[in-house]
Formats: sequence, C-alpha cells, structure tokens
Amino acid sequence: MAAARRVFLLNGPNLNLLGTREPEIYGADTLADIEARCAARAAALRLALDFRQTNSEGRLVDWIQEARGAAEAVILNAAAYTHSSIAVHDALKAYGGYVVELHLSNPHRREPFRHVSHVATAADGVIAGFGAFGYELALDAVAARLDAA
Amino acid sequence: MAAARRVFLLNGPNLNLLGTREPEIYGADTLADIEARCAARAAALRLALDFRQTNSEGRLVDWIQEARGAAEAVILNAAAYTHSSIAVHDALKAYGGYVVELHLSNPHRREPFRHVSHVATAADGVIAGFGAFGYELALDAVAARLDAA
Amino acid sequence: MAAARRVFLLNGPNLNLLGTREPEIYGADTLADIEARCAARAAALRLALDFRQTNSEGRLVDWIQEARGAAEAVILNAAAYTHSSIAVHDALKAYGGYVVELHLSNPHRREPFRHVSHVATAADGVIAGFGAFGYELALDAVAARLDAA
Amino acid sequence: MAAARRVFLLNGPNLNLLGTREPEIYGADTLADIEARCAARAAALRLALDFRQTNSEGRLVDWIQEARGAAEAVILNAAAYTHSSIAVHDALKAYGGYVVELHLSNPHRREPFRHVSHVATAADGVIAGFGAFGYELALDAVAARLDAA
Amino acid sequence: MAAARRVFLLNGPNLNLLGTREPEIYGADTLADIEARCAARAAALRLALDFRQTNSEGRLVDWIQEARGAAEAVILNAAAYTHSSIAVHDALKAYGGYVVELHLSNPHRREPFRHVSHVATAADGVIAGFGAFGYELALDAVAARLDAA
Amino acid sequence: MAAARRVFLLNGPNLNLLGTREPEIYGADTLADIEARCAARAAALRLALDFRQTNSEGRLVDWIQEARGAAEAVILNAAAYTHSSIAVHDALKAYGGYVVELHLSNPHRREPFRHVSHVATAADGVIAGFGAFGYELALDAVAARLDAA
Amino acid sequence: MAAARRVFLLNGPNLNLLGTREPEIYGADTLADIEARCAARAAALRLALDFRQTNSEGRLVDWIQEARGAAEAVILNAAAYTHSSIAVHDALKAYGGYVVELHLSNPHRREPFRHVSHVATAADGVIAGFGAFGYELALDAVAARLDAA
Amino acid sequence: MAAARRVFLLNGPNLNLLGTREPEIYGADTLADIEARCAARAAALRLALDFRQTNSEGRLVDWIQEARGAAEAVILNAAAYTHSSIAVHDALKAYGGYVVELHLSNPHRREPFRHVSHVATAADGVIAGFGAFGYELALDAVAARLDAA
Amino acid sequence: MAAARRVFLLNGPNLNLLGTREPEIYGADTLADIEARCAARAAALRLALDFRQTNSEGRLVDWIQEARGAAEAVILNAAAYTHSSIAVHDALKAYGGYVVELHLSNPHRREPFRHVSHVATAADGVIAGFGAFGYELALDAVAARLDAA
Amino acid sequence: MAAARRVFLLNGPNLNLLGTREPEIYGADTLADIEARCAARAAALRLALDFRQTNSEGRLVDWIQEARGAAEAVILNAAAYTHSSIAVHDALKAYGGYVVELHLSNPHRREPFRHVSHVATAADGVIAGFGAFGYELALDAVAARLDAA
Amino acid sequence: MAAARRVFLLNGPNLNLLGTREPEIYGADTLADIEARCAARAAALRLALDFRQTNSEGRLVDWIQEARGAAEAVILNAAAYTHSSIAVHDALKAYGGYVVELHLSNPHRREPFRHVSHVATAADGVIAGFGAFGYELALDAVAARLDAA
Amino acid sequence: MAAARRVFLLNGPNLNLLGTREPEIYGADTLADIEARCAARAAALRLALDFRQTNSEGRLVDWIQEARGAAEAVILNAAAYTHSSIAVHDALKAYGGYVVELHLSNPHRREPFRHVSHVATAADGVIAGFGAFGYELALDAVAARLDAA
Repeated sequence: MAAARRVFLLNGPNLNLLGTREPEIYGADTLADIEARCAARAAALRLALDFRQTNSEGRLVDWIQEARGAAEAVILNAAAYTHSSIAVHDALKAYGGYVVELHLSNPHRREPFRHVSHVATAADGVIAGFGAFGYELALDAVAARLDAA
Repeated sequence: MAAARRVFLLNGPNLNLLGTREPEIYGADTLADIEARCAARAAALRLALDFRQTNSEGRLVDWIQEARGAAEAVILNAAAYTHSSIAVHDALKAYGGYVVELHLSNPHRREPFRHVSHVATAADGVIAGFGAFGYELALDAVAARLDAA
Repeated sequence: MAAARRVFLLNGPNLNLLGTREPEIYGADTLADIEARCAARAAALRLALDFRQTNSEGRLVDWIQEARGAAEAVILNAAAYTHSSIAVHDALKAYGGYVVELHLSNPHRREPFRHVSHVATAADGVIAGFGAFGYELALDAVAARLDAA
Repeated sequence: MAAARRVFLLNGPNLNLLGTREPEIYGADTLADIEARCAARAAALRLALDFRQTNSEGRLVDWIQEARGAAEAVILNAAAYTHSSIAVHDALKAYGGYVVELHLSNPHRREPFRHVSHVATAADGVIAGFGAFGYELALDAVAARLDAA
Repeated sequence: MAAARRVFLLNGPNLNLLGTREPEIYGADTLADIEARCAARAAALRLALDFRQTNSEGRLVDWIQEARGAAEAVILNAAAYTHSSIAVHDALKAYGGYVVELHLSNPHRREPFRHVSHVATAADGVIAGFGAFGYELALDAVAARLDAA
Repeated sequence: MAAARRVFLLNGPNLNLLGTREPEIYGADTLADIEARCAARAAALRLALDFRQTNSEGRLVDWIQEARGAAEAVILNAAAYTHSSIAVHDALKAYGGYVVELHLSNPHRREPFRHVSHVATAADGVIAGFGAFGYELALDAVAARLDAA
Repeated sequence: MAAARRVFLLNGPNLNLLGTREPEIYGADTLADIEARCAARAAALRLALDFRQTNSEGRLVDWIQEARGAAEAVILNAAAYTHSSIAVHDALKAYGGYVVELHLSNPHRREPFRHVSHVATAADGVIAGFGAFGYELALDAVAARLDAA
Repeated sequence: MAAARRVFLLNGPNLNLLGTREPEIYGADTLADIEARCAARAAALRLALDFRQTNSEGRLVDWIQEARGAAEAVILNAAAYTHSSIAVHDALKAYGGYVVELHLSNPHRREPFRHVSHVATAADGVIAGFGAFGYELALDAVAARLDAA
Repeated sequence: MAAARRVFLLNGPNLNLLGTREPEIYGADTLADIEARCAARAAALRLALDFRQTNSEGRLVDWIQEARGAAEAVILNAAAYTHSSIAVHDALKAYGGYVVELHLSNPHRREPFRHVSHVATAADGVIAGFGAFGYELALDAVAARLDAA
Repeated sequence: MAAARRVFLLNGPNLNLLGTREPEIYGADTLADIEARCAARAAALRLALDFRQTNSEGRLVDWIQEARGAAEAVILNAAAYTHSSIAVHDALKAYGGYVVELHLSNPHRREPFRHVSHVATAADGVIAGFGAFGYELALDAVAARLDAA
Repeated sequence: MAAARRVFLLNGPNLNLLGTREPEIYGADTLADIEARCAARAAALRLALDFRQTNSEGRLVDWIQEARGAAEAVILNAAAYTHSSIAVHDALKAYGGYVVELHLSNPHRREPFRHVSHVATAADGVIAGFGAFGYELALDAVAARLDAA
Repeated sequence: MAAARRVFLLNGPNLNLLGTREPEIYGADTLADIEARCAARAAALRLALDFRQTNSEGRLVDWIQEARGAAEAVILNAAAYTHSSIAVHDALKAYGGYVVELHLSNPHRREPFRHVSHVATAADGVIAGFGAFGYELALDAVAARLDAA
C-alpha cells in the first residue's frame, strides 16, 4: 500500500547548479545532497519519491501532466518559472492531486519580479526561505496530508 | 493544386489533456476527437491539414518557422503561451501567411493575466469561446480566405 | 418551427458608413452589402434574421432588451461602444440567450483604448478580424449552437 | 461659391445651460449669445454656419456623419463627451474635412478625468480656455485654412 | 405649498428589467412595484414625486436639466451610467438642488469598473445596498433635508 | 421580544471630536447629540441600541467580535479605519449579522485615499453624506431589515 | 539548557474566532485546539512555547519587542496586520532572532490586498496554506534551525 | 498708450530650426518667417511685440520673470520644456499677466510623453495644431483680451 | 506666562528601542538620552515639554486629541504610523495648533513604502535625517514660531 | 580655522522672486532679506557662507561641483529642479560633503508633481515648511554637524 | 594560451531566420553570414568562438550553464527571451564570466514590451542597434576586456 | 576628403568629474584621459573628432543643432539628461546624421529612473557598460558606418 503514496518532487531551471551558484542566497548543499536527504526522509515517511530537475518549461509541464494518476502529490520548486510560466500554472490546475510550492530562499525579500507567483495561485501550500531543510518540511506536509485524507 | 492549400493547426501546452482537464471550461471533447472533426472538415474544404500539439514554447516556434513555405495558413491555439510568449509572436511576424488565433474558451471572461495576447497582435483574425466548434469555424475562415486570395 | 430560430444582428455607431470609412481598415463592402450576404446565409441556415444599425448607445440597450423572448441569439458588433459602454454590458448580462461579439478588424492590433471590451465579458464567443466574412462565420456559429442545444 | 464654405459648429451636453451653469468656469454668455456672435463672424468670413447643440452622444455622431459632403469643416465643443466618447472619435476619423476641438475653459486646469480627450486625437487643431471668444477664434482658424486650401 | 416640495426620482439603463434581471443581485421587485411604494411614501412625506426611467444617457441629462427650477431634489439611480457618464456628472453639477445617489446593490462588492462613480463626486448623499427599500430611505432623506432647509 | 432586536452602533477614531472638528465637513452636532437622537429613534423602532466610540483599531475589532451572538446588526462608522483596516474587514466578514457602513460626509468628494473602503466590501448597505441624520437613516434601514427577516 | 530554546508564537486579529469563522477557509480547529497541538509538539522538540493572540496592532509590536532577549525565535501569524502594518515590520527588523511567517490559508489565492506582506520582507521563512498543521511545521522549522545554529 | 499693450512671444528649444526640421510635422515656415508675420499682425492689433527664442530652460525662466511689469501677456511655445519643466510652470504662476500656451502641431496626436503639459496648468488659454497661423490666432486672442480688460 | 508655551513631543512605534535597533540607521542614542537633551533644550527655550512614546496607533490619536487646548504645538515622530495611519492624519487635522513632522533618518532614502506620509499632509513643517539632533531643531522651530505668533 | 567651515547655500529657479511671488505660499521676505538673516546667523555660528541663486539647472550643477573641496556642506533649495533634475542629483552624489535639502513650504501639501524629490535621495537631512526661518535651522544643523565631526 | 580565451556567442529564437525575416528591421545578412564574419574576427582577436542558435529557452539556459568553466565570456543575443525569461537571467547571474547583451536593432525604438530586459540586469555591457556589425563590436569588447583582465 | 568624416562626441553633466566621482561605478579614468584615447583612435580611423562636455541642457541642444551640416555623426553620452531631456531628444530627431547613445555604466543595473532613455528613442545604436573602452567602440561603430555608407 506504500505504493499508493507516491510523490513527485520537481525542480526547475538552474537548481542543478545548487551549491555553486550564489551560495549566500541558496546555500552550500548541492542538489544531489538535497535529493539524498529527501530520499531518506521519504523512506521514513513511507513515501515513494520521484525527484527530478529540468531547465525546460515544457518538460516541467510534461512531468506535472505525468503526475496525473501517477502521484498523490507534487512538490514543485519551479525557480524562475514560478514567476513567468502560465503553462506550469495551467498544468497544476489540471492536476487533481495535492500541490506544495517550494523555494529555498524567500522570494519576497528579493527583486520585485520574484514577488509574482503563477505557482502560488495553483498550489495548496507554500514553504519558502528554509533552504534545503524546506524540502524535508514539504515532504512532512505531504505525508501529514496523505495520512489525513 | 489542392496541395497548395496546406494549413498548420498548432496546439500549445496542456491541450493534450482536453476532455479531462476542467471540462466546465474546456468541454468534454478530447484533442483526438477534435482532430478527427477537423480532418473531416478540412477534407470537405480541400485543405491539407497538419494537426499538432506540444507543451514546448521552443517547438511551437520551430513549427511556425516550418510553416514558412510549407503552409498557406497557420491556425494557432497557443493556450498559455498566448499570454507569455514573445518568441511565438516574433515567429508569427516572420511568417508570411495567414494567421488565425483560436481559443476554446473566451479568455476575457477568465483571469486578468489571460487578457493579454501576444498572438493577437500578430494574427489576422481571432475566434474564441466556441469550444471545439471553433476549430471548424477557423478552418472555414481559412478556406474562405484562400478562395478569395 | 424555423420561427423559433430568431437572431438579432445589431450594429453600433459609424458602421452605417462602411465601404466609405477608412476602407484599409474596414473593407470596401457597405453595410447593405453585408446585410444582403447575411440574409442569404441566414436563409440557408434556417435563421430568421433581424439586422439593424444605430449610433445611439441607449437604442442598442433597447434592442438587446427587446431580444429577451424575441431571439435565441444576439450577434453584436458594438463598434466604439464595445470599449465604453457598461450599459450595453448590463443589457447583455440580463439577456438570457446566446451572445456573439463581432468585429470587422482585430481590435488588438489597433489603439490601446480598443483593447478593453465590455462586450467580451458578457459574450459567449468572439469573432474578430475577418472583415465582412466574419458576419457569416458568426451566423454559422449561432446556427451550430442552436442545432446543438 | 460661398456655398462651398460650409461649417458645422456642434455643441455637446449641458452647453445649452451656458450663462447659468457655474459662470465662474464657463462665463456669463448664453449659448444664444454665442450663436449670435458666431453668426456675425461667420458672415464676415464668408462662412455658411450651422450651429447646433445636443445632450445625446448618438446625435453628435449623426451630425458629424451628416457633415461628410455637407461641410468643409467641423468645429466641435463636445463637452463631457470629449473625455468619454470613442464613438465621436470614430465619427471624426471617418469625416474627411477639417476638425477643430473647442473648449470654453482649459480642461488641463480642471479634474483629472478632463485631461483625456478622444476628440484631440482626431482633431487638426485645438482652442481652449478663451471663453466665448474662442468660438470666434475657431471660425477665424477655419476660414484661414479654407482660404489656404 | 406642498407643491414646492417636488422630487425627481430618475432611473437609468436596464432598471426597467427589475424583477427579471439577475434577481440574486437586484431583488424580485419590478420597477412598477418600486414606483408604487415610492408614491405611497412620497405622499406620506408630502413630496410631489416624478418617477422616470430611461436607457439613454442624453435623456438622463435632459431630465436633470429639467429639474433646475422644477424640483428641490433629484434622487438618481444612474445604473451603468454611474460609472461611465461625465455628461451626467456635469448636469448634476449645474443643477442647484439636493442630490442623492442611489443603488439597489452595493457597487463596491461587484466588479472593479463599478467602483468608480461619476455621480458620487456630484452628489450630496449616497444610499446603496438596501434593495428596493433604499428608494424609501432616499425619500426620507430628501424630506428630512427639505424640512431642515 | 424586543431583546432580540439588538444593534451595535460603533464609531471609530476622532468621531469623539464631532462638533468641534472641521464643522464645515462634519457638522455642528456633538457625538453626544447624535447618541441622544439615535437613542430616541431606536426606542421608536424597538431596537436595543449599544452606542460606542473608540480611537483604537483593535478595540473596534473586539467590539465587532462581541456582536457575534449579541446583536442582530452592526452599524459602523469606522472613520479613518474605513480606508486602512483589513482587521476590521475580517472581523465584519466573520460576523454573521447585518452590516451597515455609515459616514457623515461623502468620502468620494474628499481626498483620494478616502475612496478605498475595506468596510464597503464587507457591508450589506452604505449610507454616506447625510450628516447626523444618516445615523437615523441607518437605524431605519436596520429596523426595516429585521422586520422583513 | 532547554530554557535557552524559547519560542514566541504570536497570533493576530480575529484568529481567536478560529473554528467558527469561515471554516471553509480557515478550518474547524479552534485556536485552543491549535495551541494544545503546538504545546505537545513543542515539548517533543524541547522548545519552551509562549502562545498568544491579540486584536491590537500595538500589542503585537509590544510582544515582538518583548521577544528581544526572551526568545530565540518568533513564529508570527499576523493575519490582517500582515498586509497593513509597517509597525510590525519594523519591530521584526529590530528583533535579532529567527522569524517565521505563518498563515492558515494561502493568501495568494485570496483577494489582491492579501498579496502584499509587510511580514514577508522581514521574515526568514514562510509557511502558508497547510491549515492548523502549518503551526507544527513552523515549530519543526524553528527547532531544526536552532539545532543547526 | 499703445505702450501699455506689450506682449512677449517666447519660443523654446529647437524652434530655431523651423522650416528645416521634420517639415511634415512643423511646416515649411522658418522662425524668421513667423516672426515677420507676427510683427505685421501685432502692428495691426496695436501690440508691442517682443519675439525671442532660446534652447535654455533657465533663460526661458529669466524671460518670463522679465515679463513681470514689462508685458501684459506672454505667449509661450515652450516646445520640449512644455512637458518637462516645472521651473517654467513656477515662473508662469508667479507672473501676473495673461498667458497663452501655443504649439505648432497638436501634441495629443504625437508620443505619449507630449501629452503632459506643465504649461497648460499655468496658462489661461491653449492654441495648438494650426501651424504658423496659430501664432496669429494667439495674438488675436491676446488683443481681444486686453481690449476687454 | 511660560505656562502658555506647552509642547507635546510624541514618539510612535519601536522608538523605545532606540540605541539598540539598527544603529547604522537610527544612531546610538537611546530615547531616554534624547528626552534628556530635549528637556534641557526646552528649558532654555522656555517651553513646557511633554515627551511620550507608544506602540499603539489609537493611543497616538488619543494624545493628539489631548493636545487640543493643552499644547500650542505637537512635534510628532510617528515612525511606522507616518506611512499607514489615516487616523493620525485626521487627529492632526482636527488639532488647531502648530505641527512638526520629525524623523531620525531620511525616509526618502529608504524603502518605497516609507515615501508616503500621512503626517506630512497635515503638518506645517518637516525635519528629517538629522538623527537625535533633529529633536532639538524641532524644538527651536516651535519656539521661533511661538515667539513670532 | 574658521576658514575650514565653509557652506554653500544655493537657491534654484524663481527664488529671486521671493516676497512678490505667491506670498501666501512663500511668505513676504525677499531673498535679500533671507540672505541678510543667514549672514548674521552664519557669523554667529562661525560659518563662512556663500549664498547664491540661479534659474539655470546647469549652473546649479556647476556650483555643486565647485563645492567639492571648497565647502564642508551644501544647503540646497533647488525649488522646481528638486522634482525634475537628475543632473542635480548626480552632482550631489559626487559631492563628498554634508547636504541639506531645504524648502520654504511643505511640498507634500502641494501638487503631486512636487511629491517626488531627486534631491532627497541624495541629501543627508531635509527641512521644509518653516518659511524663511528654515534657512536658519539649516545653518544650525550644518554647524552642529560640523562641530560633531 | 589562446585556449584560455574561449567565448560563447549564443543566439535566441527566430534568429535562424535572419536575412529573410523583416529585413527592414534586421538587415539582409543571414545568420551563417554573421557566423562567418564572427569567425574571422574571433581568429584575428585570438578568441576561440562557439557560435550557436536555438529557439528553446531551456536550451539557452543549458548553454549558459555549460559556459561555466568552459568560456571566459558569453555574448548573448537572446531575442524574444530578453524580455520574458527570468530563467536566462538566473543562469547569467550564476555564470561567473563576462557577459555582453547584444541586439541587431535598438529595442527602445520598437514595441513597449521590448523595453524590459531581463538580460540587461545580468549583463556587464550592452550593444544594440548596429545590425550585424554589432557582433564584431561585441567580440572586440570581449577581447579588450580579456586583454585587460 | 577626411574632412568629410567629422564626428561630435558630446558629454553631458558631471562627466567632467570622471575619475573622482564614484569610481566603483564610473572607473578611474578622467575625461581628459578618455579624450586622449579617443583622439588617438579617431586619428587611426580617419575621423575628425570634436570632443566636448557641458553641464547645461541648453548647450547640449545647441551643440547637437550645430552638428547639422557640420558632422556626419554624433556620439552622445548625455548622462543625467538621457533620462529627463525631451529637448535633447527633439534636437537629435532634427539632426540628420548617425547617432550613437553611449554610457560608461549599464543604466539598467542602476536606479529605476535611469531605465527611461529619451536618447535611445532617437539613436541608431546604443553602447553601455564598457567603461572608457566604450568610447572607442563607439568610434569604431561610427567609422564602420561611414565606411559602409
């Protein structure tokens, strides 16, 4: 039955550079470090985790569509596409499961163009500003939700 | 000479979900249903139809470029990219043929971010809000135009 | 039973000048030419057509009110009142039938004050940019809708 | 040949109240006083003057349309419709003759909603703020223009 | 001397549809029902009531002008023209009597384009959101004012 | 049974200065004068009136919360907090009874920052611009509503 | 040493109504229920929790000031003051500890005036949209942070 | 006594290029041509004309100051400074005489940054769009005004 | 007679933290240091000083009201409420004495939300950016004014 | 050593008209009166004062540049250039000394275009609204600063 | 050591159409022509050039990431993505080398949506409006920079 | 014939301070250094260079006018006037030769008021962000253009 608790954790553009890109904003962990921590946490929470990254807006849309019927929840750190992609917004609206918006930093403390979120208007919950630890919080939130449902 | 009356009918992101995604907005027809109806209509109108869908902005641009010299008209339901893609706009401006902007629903009755259209400013005509039937209207409009030209 | 398929096709200010006013934007057909084409098309589609024009906002409101109980659909080319008349908007909202917004040219390619439409937010479908042929498309759309209903 | 030098001088809403309405803004002359002065001036300038007033936007449009072929110039004090009427703007654009926008007071010294003019964008010249004397200036301007043409 | 206490109660576009148009917003009373209630109330308050409705902006302006010298107060439910008519605003400014702006519903709870009022900036008092009963409140307010003056 | 018809009439900041503060805007009545008139009117209407004033936003919120279960209606002249307080808005939304927004003057004729109302978007009806008499109108409106319910 | 891990969890206006106010937005838990769950969680995380609520902006400022030297972290659900209070913002900036912004619902899916946050620009992390469970996530985030520091 | 009827006619930046600069906008007359026509007209109107041009904002301010006590009226074609100079605005406000704003073309038909006028808000009357003839109209207007005063 | 020269010097939210809060912006003096310097200066200027601080908007309003009849001048450093409080603005407008707006730092060099001042529009003079010394300048300004009156 | 305490006090456009221009806004003192008072005050404060006025933006820039190395402080009443001159802003940023922005009236109580200040964003302190006495306050502020440095 | 002087010259959407697309804006050179000229220039400047084009936003991001460690400089003509892509902006910010923004035409002379540049805010230098020759200027600028570093 | 290849290189306000003013933004070269490098480069390119600087907007206009007939190209670093001067814009539009806009730094990475350019809308090409070397690039661009013409 653990098979029923699948989660997609999708990462958008430039997140593959984590640990090297502007560490004062994004922290020193690499995306591989984060994936490893998420895998451990997911196992503890009895979640089957599918962890991916892409620089392509279209592929993000493909993956969110793929989640329909394949995952109970999507955790999405859409990075730059958070602020510019209506296509991602539409894919999330078409997805029937639970959606968590995730950011490493707090976008409201950065440039004005990061204050608009097309993901937020299609997400159930938002977690931002906790660095790599936010990924674990998001998994906790999903597990709690699936337990409650 | 029918070969000269070629039409590209291009569909943007998430339209592959038609029939399952928010049917109260988009209707119950699948994209395959619509393609079948379009094929029949195109045959009756002596149009050679090329019907495609993609979630990728770059591929939409590729296809519009491909239409240069390969099709007399492009019917474009760019979906979310209608509102965000200047690249699609530029590709349409560079295309020398006839362009019809198409939408299943009426964007002006939806969220404000759907009231901006980068396609409209590069299109000859606009058809919106007629659901799947709008595809047939668009083919009629193209055929009438090509007959007149 | 054809009597049940009545359509009002209402034209707003300055459309009586068609054929003489800025033909590079609006085409060379006069409104009488268009009415004749519409009459023929309507007959073929078994629609009883009532085709009118006025320069008065109040009279447009009167006519839309008159359509309640008298016509299954209203096709409205409100011209300038498209962009300025909330009274027309309210009359359309009060009307229970099917509404098609119609324009000869594509307003999004013209001045910014033509990008706002108080008709669009009260219309089911929109047809714009096809010149006089758009009137026939609008009749087709109405007929298809009434056939389906 | 004086017959060829016809001018329509059209007045919009509430100008029939002149002399009684807010005289500190509009002056103490009645519209009849102004018409008399204009008639005298027009005679001296060999202009055949047609001087009218209406509270109806639609009738203003009718009259501007009537000027096509009937007058070499239109002098228009559209009053409140200056700021709200796209229908008047379109009628002026369709009119082939010379157009002068006229105001008794200077709209830029009044409320912000009077700073937008849909007449100005369709007029050749503008005269504002000279009270009743501005009507005579407008006739002089028209006569000078027709002499030069 | 009751003759000196005359009131114009003017209704704008689409209010003739009351009772049939969107009753969840405007209530089930027809305009005739409301007129009857107002007549009774006016009689009790010793007001001579003149109750009218029009879809025409120009006629509203005519009637407000007519009130100069003919009525001590104007109660105006300008409906859609509330939000678009500067001509009505100017007529009210030129009118020397007491002005009450009236609405059946509360415009601030509706679409943004109903949040602008050209009537409010020329009215003494505002009553909105009380449905048909608001008409009686407006008469009470006028009577109290005329008693006090 | 009169006990069931309780009304809170709450006054916001600076209204305790009435009669001394800018009388050309707010009139010469003191708040005590107004309370006395309201008490008389309430008695006539069989309403149990609770009349209060505070300069504190938090206390206004407390009182609106207190009205839950304690009063059938709240009449609120929030004064400056009308334009700045989302907390008051939220308290009104949480309150299940009837809400009337009240102002002595007409805010739309004053500074632009008074044109925004966070109370209006949570109120059933609005009465503004009638000076102290508006308080009595508001009580009439509440009584009529409670009679009808 | 557990004494060193003190946390203030501060709740703003109207949160004392939880469980009764608009439960479709805020859920069925009362604030007392939430406080009990937080107390249990805090104990498990070895945090000394101080849980408070107020409707007063000034008191929120007092409490945040009190946290200076008295708590390692502040979790703040400022409710309506999130969007209107610069005083709260300034108090948070003056506070030297860790700050988490908390909301039961996702403000970006609600009215536009809830899209501005004066708390976010002074907070380290944000958790929104998880209902009562979000309080536990916030405590987890604080504990993780204090463990790491 | 003709000495008492002095007029400054001041021209701003780039007007010295008239006749060579964008003649489709500004006409073929040079500034010397215009000065000659103005001198003749002024003589006929018994006005002592002082005609100047400068590219310097500060010098325009100097000259307007100089007009205090030296001229009954200032006719000002401030060209680009119309849209950018608050210093010119302040100088005009400090000047006690009659002020006419003058433009060769109609700024409202040109770029949006020419739609703002700091001169208009300090001028009595405005004449625009009549080319070189507008200078003569302005002199007529000044003479009529001084005759009437 | 020195008794007639009373001054309220009122400090808003978070100013009690001076000397510890962001000293690079606000300086190292505590509010007690500043009060001591003000007391000395006031004595030298023969002013009876009442120096207070509060975090509560309502209490600021109370104190400004208290100044009516009790003080010839109010010096107000409203801190955050400068930018958000219309209630403070209204209290100042109702106060009949002399008002000086005071800030330690220069708000125009800080965040955009500090560029709006509801105090400035109700103040006679403004002093900003001089740190603690600005308090003494404000007292000097008040004394000079009272000497002159 | 007094030589080390040099101050430039620079006045912008139209300030040479003081005492004659709109005295209800600017007061009855002439600029010469103010210069005399400043000279006396400067002497008392052991400041070597250089007091100048110009209508030219470029000369203001020249003078601010001249202050580099020649004066410890610049007091600047830039008048209209406050709101329009980026060149003055840049000159102030390049100047290494202490800068005080000065205004006779309070710009926030005047037209909206006076609410923007390009000087404020380059100034240390601001003094406004104290009329001629503000000049003395500015000298006091500079002396205090130079004493402290 | 020439190996150390590598440059990526990346071209965005629709630039593969150069020479055929709107030559009045973009010139008659094809992208192959430009590549050839760049290759020659790069060789002369001892730069190892990698010249690419794509219609895909994601691929542009991939390539900019690839430049980290592989090229000392990136010259980017992002075309339409200049104005819409935050992902490209983020990739440039993460890239440690020298960045030149390049455009064939001058975007500020085109449509308003081309006046926003997400590349400019992450670029060191900008070259625009020189047609194909701008590519050579960009290479010169890079070489000069690398020589100087 | 080298005489035919004349170039004006005009520098606006505060550029005479180069090398001393904010060197982290503008670099350590003085304007004299830059002029020397430009003279050398111009000689190599067979350009007759006229290199000037002024703090006066009017003089910049004078010089651009002087270039008509005297120079084949104008390179303009208008500094602050780039963002505020319509007079400079108009002078450039009236100039018939080739225009290059030049900046030492990249204005898009600085304050928002530097993102508007009245020069860009009248310039052929733009070079920004390359420091003093940008001057040489601009000369290269001009020479290449004149060679090609």
